[in-house]
Amino acid sequence: MTKKSVLQQARAAYQPKLPSVLWGPVKAVKGEPTQSVGDQEEIKKLFPNTYGLPELEFVKDTDASKKKTGKPAKFNVGVILSGGQAPGGHNVICGLFDGLKALNKENRLYGFLMGPGGLVDHKYKELTASFINDYRNTGGFDMIGSGRTKLETPEQFEKGLEIIKELDIRAIVIIGGDDSNTNAAVLAEYYKAKNVPVQVLGCPKTIDGDLKNEWIETSFGFDTATKVYSELIGNIERDANSAKKYWHFMKLMGRSASHIALECALKTQPNYCIVSEEVEAKNMTLNDIVADIAKVVAQRAADGNNFGSVLVPEGLIEFIPAMKKLIAQLNDMLAEHPEIKQMEPDAQHKFVVDHLTKENVEAFNSLPVDVQRQLSLDRDPHGNVQVSLIETEKLLSDMVEKKLEQMKEKGEYVGKFSALHHFFGYEGRCADPSNFDADYCYALGYNAAQLVNCGATGYMSSIRNLAKPSIQWIAGGIPITMMFNMEQRNGKQKPVIRKALVDLNGRPFQVFAQHRAKWARETCYVYPGPVQYFGPDEVCNQTSKTLYYEQEGK
Amino acid sequence: MTKKSVLQQARAAYQPKLPSVLWGPVKAVKGEPTQSVGDQEEIKKLFPNTYGLPELEFVKDTDASKKKTGKPAKFNVGVILSGGQAPGGHNVICGLFDGLKALNKENRLYGFLMGPGGLVDHKYKELTASFINDYRNTGGFDMIGSGRTKLETPEQFEKGLEIIKELDIRAIVIIGGDDSNTNAAVLAEYYKAKNVPVQVLGCPKTIDGDLKNEWIETSFGFDTATKVYSELIGNIERDANSAKKYWHFMKLMGRSASHIALECALKTQPNYCIVSEEVEAKNMTLNDIVADIAKVVAQRAADGNNFGSVLVPEGLIEFIPAMKKLIAQLNDMLAEHPEIKQMEPDAQHKFVVDHLTKENVEAFNSLPVDVQRQLSLDRDPHGNVQVSLIETEKLLSDMVEKKLEQMKEKGEYVGKFSALHHFFGYEGRCADPSNFDADYCYALGYNAAQLVNCGATGYMSSIRNLAKPSIQWIAGGIPITMMFNMEQRNGKQKPVIRKALVDLNGRPFQVFAQHRAKWARETCYVYPGPVQYFGPDEVCNQTSKTLYYEQEGK
Repeated sequence: MTKKSVLQQARAAYQPKLPSVLWGPVKAVKGEPTQSVGDQEEIKKLFPNTYGLPELEFVKDTDASKKKTGKPAKFNVGVILSGGQAPGGHNVICGLFDGLKALNKENRLYGFLMGPGGLVDHKYKELTASFINDYRNTGGFDMIGSGRTKLETPEQFEKGLEIIKELDIRAIVIIGGDDSNTNAAVLAEYYKAKNVPVQVLGCPKTIDGDLKNEWIETSFGFDTATKVYSELIGNIERDANSAKKYWHFMKLMGRSASHIALECALKTQPNYCIVSEEVEAKNMTLNDIVADIAKVVAQRAADGNNFGSVLVPEGLIEFIPAMKKLIAQLNDMLAEHPEIKQMEPDAQHKFVVDHLTKENVEAFNSLPVDVQRQLSLDRDPHGNVQVSLIETEKLLSDMVEKKLEQMKEKGEYVGKFSALHHFFGYEGRCADPSNFDADYCYALGYNAAQLVNCGATGYMSSIRNLAKPSIQWIAGGIPITMMFNMEQRNGKQKPVIRKALVDLNGRPFQVFAQHRAKWARETCYVYPGPVQYFGPDEVCNQTSKTLYYEQEGK
Repeated sequence: MTKKSVLQQARAAYQPKLPSVLWGPVKAVKGEPTQSVGDQEEIKKLFPNTYGLPELEFVKDTDASKKKTGKPAKFNVGVILSGGQAPGGHNVICGLFDGLKALNKENRLYGFLMGPGGLVDHKYKELTASFINDYRNTGGFDMIGSGRTKLETPEQFEKGLEIIKELDIRAIVIIGGDDSNTNAAVLAEYYKAKNVPVQVLGCPKTIDGDLKNEWIETSFGFDTATKVYSELIGNIERDANSAKKYWHFMKLMGRSASHIALECALKTQPNYCIVSEEVEAKNMTLNDIVADIAKVVAQRAADGNNFGSVLVPEGLIEFIPAMKKLIAQLNDMLAEHPEIKQMEPDAQHKFVVDHLTKENVEAFNSLPVDVQRQLSLDRDPHGNVQVSLIETEKLLSDMVEKKLEQMKEKGEYVGKFSALHHFFGYEGRCADPSNFDADYCYALGYNAAQLVNCGATGYMSSIRNLAKPSIQWIAGGIPITMMFNMEQRNGKQKPVIRKALVDLNGRPFQVFAQHRAKWARETCYVYPGPVQYFGPDEVCNQTSKTLYYEQEGK
């Protein structure tokens, strides 16, 4: 553990606010048997032992003290951080630890190191109170590290079982996103089918906000990450409004979904925010988007405002139908003709254009030369184009600039256009968690200990009613199979948790859509400032706008 | 005024802590006549009316109440924001306003709009209490806007005088960096020489921290901006330490001087931080720097740590002696042979190499092709290469990658190197000011009102003893000419405030130099977290490390 900053020293003393239902002994109330959200028959067949489990809700066990059932059961638990960092991961582990110790002081917690690979490779560390205490309310996943190994094969499951038995572990808690939780369900089914007494539980993690449904109101980390990005966007908007000479194009992390961009837009009221899901729904081309932004630039210029802010979601390119088709054909072409990669730029361009469909040639030619080349060359190990490497923010501003030149010639635009570019992502993944994420994560972990205690497997730790103060939150467990449907992955139909994209009929998008014309034309920036950990309640304990509008709309 | 965030609403109530000496009436104690820091004879000749003025220090005027000199003098003041944004500018204006009103409720304050150009073009706004109150403790310069027009010519001074007379303005307060304060001194001299009763005063603004000397301990904005950058660097370091697979190269704003990079390094303890002033002093080449970083990467890789953090000051390129010579020759070559710009890449490369000195060819060939081309093409309107456009952070990581490949072949390096890049600048210029900057700026402004009242002209508002709690700060005025020396600017010798570069013998650099070997090899990151406005004193009221070490070392 390195030197702590003064803020971290002060913040270490923060006691996360646990839902009141978890303040003492609980009992699980079972709901009706559940169904998966889609493809029920196939899912049921794939998960014969963990399909159809009931939802669980914890209520206070007021009779607990009278029961005097002797010493409570003693058990050990293993915990794994899976995938990209999200603020609050350490607090899930701290909550889990405290929950286990509250059940029985002799319970032990093991952390598998550097992600799911630690389970397979038997790399672990016992997490003791003194070790854990240094990580309370801190960001990052450095307590035990994270990794992207996918737990998918029986060989991995068996290797895991060896160490599970050796350490006498009763349950594995996997803290991860949709894919990691999907794998948790597969693992739970595998052990249940083998009649091995190992429970597997999941916790919903991802700053991207795309692990979300009726039962999981938000994934942890989204709140803090969007607060950090909004601090930066607000600062840059204030800079734009002071200097009055730059258009700032800001790309935001978030993978496919545009939840992060939308949340930041609701917080900072930029002049423009692209929502990928809308681009797809409206079947917009790249040129359509560019024309729309150029229109806003021209309108503002007409008012004498040659400055502005544009938010760009990371996953945009894949949502533009024309680009999607183009990329698909390019992927196939490169697989068939690997020699393309070695060609000189001109020859390559000719070859590609000659072999593309007429529709795709049009999309291809709409792109600047360097992006054309990027699409024709770089591929990830699976042969897919690495869209995240495409500097969409620069691509868009370059195209907007060209469009404005054309408009200028036609007399449709009078003004100056000077663009600056930013990409915000890594800045927010390891920030110290906001009060919301500190509380939410601690509750998710503490709650997971209760799920272990009541014997649940194949469940995700679920804390609900999140727009309310944390002591009013509802705690329980949701069968992971309930969130499943079948989707195409790497050419195969697989059971997966349905990824939550931005719902264009949902309140968060609707509120944005209602205001965006005004935000585009006028300068309505809001400057949220940095995350505060001390001070007035309304400053420190605000939930995300997304959650607020979703719950308010209920 | 747009909608305020909840934080801004809460923060509006903050009352900046004024030095106790300014809590009531003051009188100015005059020091001895002063000398400029260099070229005394020439400066004296250029500033016959404002050279040699005494330092002023304010002390409580305990006799003030007994004097009963009737109604205090009534006067109007104009204020100008000049140059790049820095957190706290609004508080200088608020302090000035409150200081003026404390002297006489009928005093008025006018804000000239969009920088010094507002004075010349007669664009202004009267700043009233209700208007100003919305901007208390906020970031940005949007209250009256800023601009980069240089006040240099008698025509401008005369145009300014027209509006000054029309509004019956007694003093102009220019809030700006070293150049703007230099111009303030020129303007003060001009009006004094003409016997026009207009005082001109300056306030030391710039996030870069390079307006600093024996009398001006720091410029405002440096504290907040470096806190914002350090928040982000810390978050990214925590991400690096969690994922353990990326080297993050982070370029930091700060123009020529490396104060920002050094301050952030002292706060976050990165694996590597380049200090341009040291590069120059040691006569290092780009290859030397690259080799040094590669050595650190290799050492960490040997320990199994294929991740790290590197801070790069924005002005680096100009401090590498070999690059400086190369750029100078390229500038001359392009001026002489403008046809170079039109040549095809290969022909251009050949021409340039054929015409460079042998030494410069070596420096040129050490650069990646795209940077070579950038240096051979893009020039600003003055014919200078736009070094700030060179993506030094990418240039360095590309060169480090190549160097590591060579080392790998020789068996000197075993590991993986994957780099990510960031540039932090605009994120920090308009942040809401930290308590330090909120207090310091308010005091600078309030103090400037006292300087007006005592008839000072050609002075900079000076608040000292800054490492102490703000009520113990010392208030006064420093003759701007005292900070002058003669320097070459656009081919001419000009009187200018000497720019403060990082002092390699100063404590801040020495502390960094003492620890950097350990920080390089081990992982000693510190995560400062976001600026806090509420909460424990040590969290909210820490001064910069630079100021701390400088004052502690006194």
